[in-house]
Amino acid sequence: MSFDPATLRYDARGLIPAIAQDAETDEVLMLAWMNAEAVARTLETGRVTYWSRSRQAFWEKGATSGHVQELVEMRLDCDRDTLLLRVRQTGPACHTGRRSCFYTAVRDGAEVEIMAPG
Amino acid sequence: MSFDPATLRYDARGLIPAIAQDAETDEVLMLAWMNAEAVARTLETGRVTYWSRSRQAFWEKGATSGHVQELVEMRLDCDRDTLLLRVRQTGPACHTGRRSCFYTAVRDGAEVEIMAPG
Repeated sequence: MSFDPATLRYDARGLIPAIAQDAETDEVLMLAWMNAEAVARTLETGRVTYWSRSRQAFWEKGATSGHVQELVEMRLDCDRDTLLLRVRQTGPACHTGRRSCFYTAVRDGAEVEIMAPG
Repeated sequence: MSFDPATLRYDARGLIPAIAQDAETDEVLMLAWMNAEAVARTLETGRVTYWSRSRQAFWEKGATSGHVQELVEMRLDCDRDTLLLRVRQTGPACHTGRRSCFYTAVRDGAEVEIMAPG
């Protein structure tokens, strides 16, 4: 069955959440959003391109920072309303300089930083 | 710094996306949604509880199927608008009987099933 980005289920803003996971280590790096055109661009170019909700613009990950995400494989879930991107990440995925955006854990009711920049 | 679910950033519906990841294998199992009360219940009980958008009700994962998710650790991202749940999953996470909801890959422009039920 051939894949058409239009057959995914987007929210009222026309967006779908995309989880980026390191294809080598399986670490979850970040979650960002895509519209149908971002999905198509990502598949065409092999460079992960999101839709920035704050800037209302395409966001080719790493285009300015160099911290690109090369697409290894795109997967969709049973409801077709979430994407899982298996990626090869250059440098940190997080704008804070950390490998992953999920560097804060809740332990015994407190927030704990579990990952340092760098 | 003590953790208060009210300090997370929820969308216009009062919801935040939560990624469930197998704490042992690092496999991404599913993505579902929580409101502040679901976050609090999950932390209090150690049983992952989502908010069902279709049923508009709390959804204690596995309450009827037995396919519960035991919380190992909750993490939040840099923007405080996405949760990563490290879980111990009993049985399949997906309602289709597959371990993960992300059983469809896009390969060479086609949808390919990469995981069987059971």
